[in-house]
Amino acid sequence: MASATKTSWSTFERRMQEIEDLGAALSLLSWDEQTYCSPRGREARAQHLATLSTLVHERVVDPWYGELVDGLAEDPDGLDEVQRAMVRNVKHDRDRAARLPAELVRALAVTGSRANRAWEEARRASDFSRFRPHLEDVLALKVEQADALGHDGERYDALLEAFEPGMRVAQLEPILNGLRDELVPFVRRILDRPAPDASFLAGPYPHDRQLELSMRVLRDFGFDFEAGRQDTSTHPFCGGPGPTDVRLTTRTYDSLEPGCLYSSMHEAGHGLYEQGLVALAPRSAVAHAPSLGVHESQSRFWENVVGRSRAFWEHYLPIARELFPGQLAGVGVDDMVRGVNKVAASPIRVDADEVTYNLHILLRFDLELGLLREELAVADLPEAWRESMERLVGYTPRNDAEGVLQDIHWSWGEFGYFPTYTLGNLYGAAVAEAMRAEVDLDACTAAGDFAPILAWLRTNIHRHGHVLSGEELMQRATGRPLGHEPFMRYLTSKFGALYGVS
Amino acid sequence: MASATKTSWSTFERRMQEIEDLGAALSLLSWDEQTYCSPRGREARAQHLATLSTLVHERVVDPWYGELVDGLAEDPDGLDEVQRAMVRNVKHDRDRAARLPAELVRALAVTGSRANRAWEEARRASDFSRFRPHLEDVLALKVEQADALGHDGERYDALLEAFEPGMRVAQLEPILNGLRDELVPFVRRILDRPAPDASFLAGPYPHDRQLELSMRVLRDFGFDFEAGRQDTSTHPFCGGPGPTDVRLTTRTYDSLEPGCLYSSMHEAGHGLYEQGLVALAPRSAVAHAPSLGVHESQSRFWENVVGRSRAFWEHYLPIARELFPGQLAGVGVDDMVRGVNKVAASPIRVDADEVTYNLHILLRFDLELGLLREELAVADLPEAWRESMERLVGYTPRNDAEGVLQDIHWSWGEFGYFPTYTLGNLYGAAVAEAMRAEVDLDACTAAGDFAPILAWLRTNIHRHGHVLSGEELMQRATGRPLGHEPFMRYLTSKFGALYGVS
Repeated sequence: MASATKTSWSTFERRMQEIEDLGAALSLLSWDEQTYCSPRGREARAQHLATLSTLVHERVVDPWYGELVDGLAEDPDGLDEVQRAMVRNVKHDRDRAARLPAELVRALAVTGSRANRAWEEARRASDFSRFRPHLEDVLALKVEQADALGHDGERYDALLEAFEPGMRVAQLEPILNGLRDELVPFVRRILDRPAPDASFLAGPYPHDRQLELSMRVLRDFGFDFEAGRQDTSTHPFCGGPGPTDVRLTTRTYDSLEPGCLYSSMHEAGHGLYEQGLVALAPRSAVAHAPSLGVHESQSRFWENVVGRSRAFWEHYLPIARELFPGQLAGVGVDDMVRGVNKVAASPIRVDADEVTYNLHILLRFDLELGLLREELAVADLPEAWRESMERLVGYTPRNDAEGVLQDIHWSWGEFGYFPTYTLGNLYGAAVAEAMRAEVDLDACTAAGDFAPILAWLRTNIHRHGHVLSGEELMQRATGRPLGHEPFMRYLTSKFGALYGVS
Repeated sequence: MASATKTSWSTFERRMQEIEDLGAALSLLSWDEQTYCSPRGREARAQHLATLSTLVHERVVDPWYGELVDGLAEDPDGLDEVQRAMVRNVKHDRDRAARLPAELVRALAVTGSRANRAWEEARRASDFSRFRPHLEDVLALKVEQADALGHDGERYDALLEAFEPGMRVAQLEPILNGLRDELVPFVRRILDRPAPDASFLAGPYPHDRQLELSMRVLRDFGFDFEAGRQDTSTHPFCGGPGPTDVRLTTRTYDSLEPGCLYSSMHEAGHGLYEQGLVALAPRSAVAHAPSLGVHESQSRFWENVVGRSRAFWEHYLPIARELFPGQLAGVGVDDMVRGVNKVAASPIRVDADEVTYNLHILLRFDLELGLLREELAVADLPEAWRESMERLVGYTPRNDAEGVLQDIHWSWGEFGYFPTYTLGNLYGAAVAEAMRAEVDLDACTAAGDFAPILAWLRTNIHRHGHVLSGEELMQRATGRPLGHEPFMRYLTSKFGALYGVS
């Protein structure tokens, strides 16, 4: 490395590390906000988060830092592949941040916060009209934001880029359409069959024992409790300051499903990924997942591909029966597998099963596209939602609360986020298919021996961090480009057998 | 306020709030480090703390901020009393920080960290010679630091100033000497009497029930669990991000004392004070205690004056008996009061009772003074320690581990800190004496009605934050200057009765 580059690099590295440390502090403050923060301390916490976020933003967009980053990006001689990726990732986020006028950032925060409160009230009252003017304000700002960020005519791309760098609507839309064309008739065939009896899942199941079971499963999966922990919170999430201290949360209901176990397995999928990022340089811009879709592939893999498999319950039903002898008396492996894989035409996305879930996402993607292309007006959203729900899921929402008002995302301007959930399912199924060529997934799961599974994920996905783009990483790991086929093969094979359909 | 002052003030206020927010984040990160941080996450946490501390330091010593602060301090027209106090407090800390060369700050951190590791090893081996060269290095840097900070010939003052702003050795030494002259013979008279039987305190007492009792007492004291919480940690402390979210920790042993209850009451004393600071402008330099001694007066008051009183056990013994029926069978109020007030000539400060505790502090104060006046060499410390322990406490340490190596403080350069513990006792007794003129402390305690006690502390101490200096605040609250007399009156009255001595 030439000495000028050396100096630039070490200045760059110091600033990058400082920003990463601030990000870690922000993550911990957010985790605490959801877990142990005192009720009366929330207002102050919002202030602490705002101050730290502003400090990060100031440091990211510092002009001298921008020049330094541009210089390293233009003349990367002497930098290795990983260092170049760090520069690339920093430049990506920096360029986007620098394109947004401070006034717009402030307006987005203020309007989003106001819209969020309006959404809460509107949902309680199940009255979209109370939310409408606020959503119109938010959308106008998102249009402005997308145009400021820049795009090639497809505004949605500029927002999607925040969650799934490099992904474009032109690539994504045909894949999602292909998925829809196969999924809708498949769901119809399943729903024509008699629904399995899942009443035994209702319980009540003692909460402490549900937590005990989830801890057992997380340990078996290989989650390192020396480098992380599990607590409870209203909305389960995976967070924390970094790979050596990953914070999972879960929640308990009286029922086993929905319940603690599957939400724990889902977050553990994220958490195992985060712990695997310890292989990358700490405090660096490559010690992250390359995209939300890739991250979600890991949570969906552990929750659904592993956790809702027959093999899983072959191993864990005897263990669960010791914890819940009364509730699970007379329940066999087949009952359990059918119960946790029950398919239903239901209104609420977060309660949806693995098969219909993606229809809820496709609906949102279409509506978001329509809004950002200015082909759909906010005022027409409730009707468009109803029509789509009927067409895709076969369910007619009875009111706005179980329709267009159910998600928090739009209120604070999160457009472009929803597709990452379905990308997670598509990637997750492709990962499973590729893994099966080397690892006997079912045999390992049935034996409760998850080490070979985790090792495969570590080698092929986790240890690469954000050196490659999400798409490149997945292409290498799965040996195929993004598509809906592996996921549909997975669904038709599993649910075809469960429901006797093809 | 003139418009120039107005602009200066709002710029000052913004920067002050930012620094306070960073301080709050640091507090939360430290709390988490002691409670929920994953073992493998500690190294990264040290890094996050270092980065945030550096950001705070940079912001505190920013030259333009210094000029702004100086300007407001010199020309405070238009500022009210509280605003002037904010400027004064910020200037105080800023001027001290700015006087230290970055090189010295770094050397103190590096040497302290190395000395701390050496101290751990030396204590394990009970071998002062392993610690000696490191302590010499630390002391040399502390001398340099004190001289850089500036003093009027008494180097110790410059270090004491960090913990007890405004306090000077010239004022403190005669008070502590007066205390010593009365305390030493008083302790001798007590130790000549038969020791009470405190064997029933050994238990074992179930840990969960000890926690239950402590939570009950904290609630009764008035600690607001909507604005704080209690967790467990290896070393109990009171921390957290601010008055609306105060984090107490405690620890349990098999014994009742030492045990969870008294450590909880001690930290709750700090915590009640912190919660009372909610009366001050949030995110400001007056929303803090003015000194460690004043802070400690609150913890000692609740732990000792209230918690070790006869009235306390009149109320809580029946409650404790329900939780520990076997352990407390046949134990009366008198037994309990004598048990938790047992006086002994013991080697370890943190295990010392309320009477001998201050002798341990006086010993350290003398030695620290000798070191900083360069009248005592580090090499002579073990012998000086032994001699003082015999003279003051009447105990001869059997080795370095139970002598000069027992405390962590000196290893990381905390000279000037120890006297704040005794100041806490002196102030705490003066507070109790003043309070008794208006509140029937014993009747309230015996009735478990602590509201009048807390209200008095809120009015006279807590709500003033750091608008006044610690000494001024205590002078107003207690109606008298700092002295050892109220504390000796408290000790002779209570322990005179318990032990039948005068």
